[in-house]
Amino acid sequence: MTGRLDLVGVGPGDPELLTLKAVRRIVDADLVAYPRTESGAALAFEIARSHIADPARAVPLDIPMRAERAALATAYDVIADTLTAHVEAGRTLAYLCEGDPMVYGSAVHLLDRLAGRLPIEIVPGVTSLTAAAAAASLPLGTGNDILKVLPATLPDPALQAELAAGAAVVIKPGRHTARLKGLLTRTGRADSAVVVGYASHEEQFVAPLGEISGDLPYFSIVLVPGGPGIEQ
Amino acid sequence: MTGRLDLVGVGPGDPELLTLKAVRRIVDADLVAYPRTESGAALAFEIARSHIADPARAVPLDIPMRAERAALATAYDVIADTLTAHVEAGRTLAYLCEGDPMVYGSAVHLLDRLAGRLPIEIVPGVTSLTAAAAAASLPLGTGNDILKVLPATLPDPALQAELAAGAAVVIKPGRHTARLKGLLTRTGRADSAVVVGYASHEEQFVAPLGEISGDLPYFSIVLVPGGPGIEQ
Repeated sequence: MTGRLDLVGVGPGDPELLTLKAVRRIVDADLVAYPRTESGAALAFEIARSHIADPARAVPLDIPMRAERAALATAYDVIADTLTAHVEAGRTLAYLCEGDPMVYGSAVHLLDRLAGRLPIEIVPGVTSLTAAAAAASLPLGTGNDILKVLPATLPDPALQAELAAGAAVVIKPGRHTARLKGLLTRTGRADSAVVVGYASHEEQFVAPLGEISGDLPYFSIVLVPGGPGIEQ
Repeated sequence: MTGRLDLVGVGPGDPELLTLKAVRRIVDADLVAYPRTESGAALAFEIARSHIADPARAVPLDIPMRAERAALATAYDVIADTLTAHVEAGRTLAYLCEGDPMVYGSAVHLLDRLAGRLPIEIVPGVTSLTAAAAAASLPLGTGNDILKVLPATLPDPALQAELAAGAAVVIKPGRHTARLKGLLTRTGRADSAVVVGYASHEEQFVAPLGEISGDLPYFSIVLVPGGPGIEQ
């Protein structure tokens, strides 16, 4: 077998935030695979589009974002089999991942299924977490700071406990926005919280959490700066 | 004033992990500034060296890594004044940051001093955290997972409390390695912990924590995979 699967991070949205390595792997690959939702959205492909001149190299893979857990698992099984067939036929594939492949993305589900079965290389990318911090000029951590990434989908007790210490980056607010605001207020963290939407995209916005009414987009991020560092 | 300071993330070590945007900002800048330690080490410069052809554009800035807090603060004050003088003279400067500027680096101290005084733009970069995860093929988070970045320099009670839930990336082990191993054992997290040293550098190594004897390098990372996710 001479094929290989590269899980390639393409960064948070700005095509200039692709790494030189990502560009080279995309250009050199026999095929460029990427997730596509039922609405036809294919953000990772859009980010890397200028490096995929030949449409015959593009392999969209359907992922039903709004599916139940079992249907989603089946979709990833099908994608894993498709990728395996290409690699076993000797092809090199670049699978495009928004942000970084190891951080809250579809590649984690593919790695679960394919690790040990195929030659896989992982090309790290810029995450939306640091792109959001850059947009807001808000450091995520220094010195002895604790930094936490917290999905807003966590239940209240877990979120409240974690917000007791350290800086936090809350992801996936969406329909959890009002609940998250309440928790941040109860833990004394609401006043310093800053929202970054669509980090590094043309539609990027930055605003204090207090100025937001209604639900935030799912792909926005709430930055919660840390209190004073813990000194030893 | 037409000058500008760009805080440019150059990634964790592999020169191919520079972004296209970082390369452009480095190539276009009038001057390229970077931290240099008392031993003469200048990792951020080494990473970006191939894009800085003219040595007259390079501006090394001395940071005494082993200094007391007051001496370090003075060094950052001096650097901030140097950068300010260049920008006020109308120059564009790229200040090179290992990894990402907003994640545990010297740029955070410069931003503290210069925000609001100068036009500053921040170019995010690939962090050593995700480069380590890529090297170990170990996802940092998916779904409802909590992810924590924990400096090993934290006191025992804080580290132990944080290790009770979520996946963790422990940074700066160095002389805290033995203490960290003890804490991971006490919290039941030692068996799954994986060490990545010099992520993305030529000297990169990956090993289970249990196989490590003696102190880890300061710039190594201990990946502690999460337990089962918290479902809502």
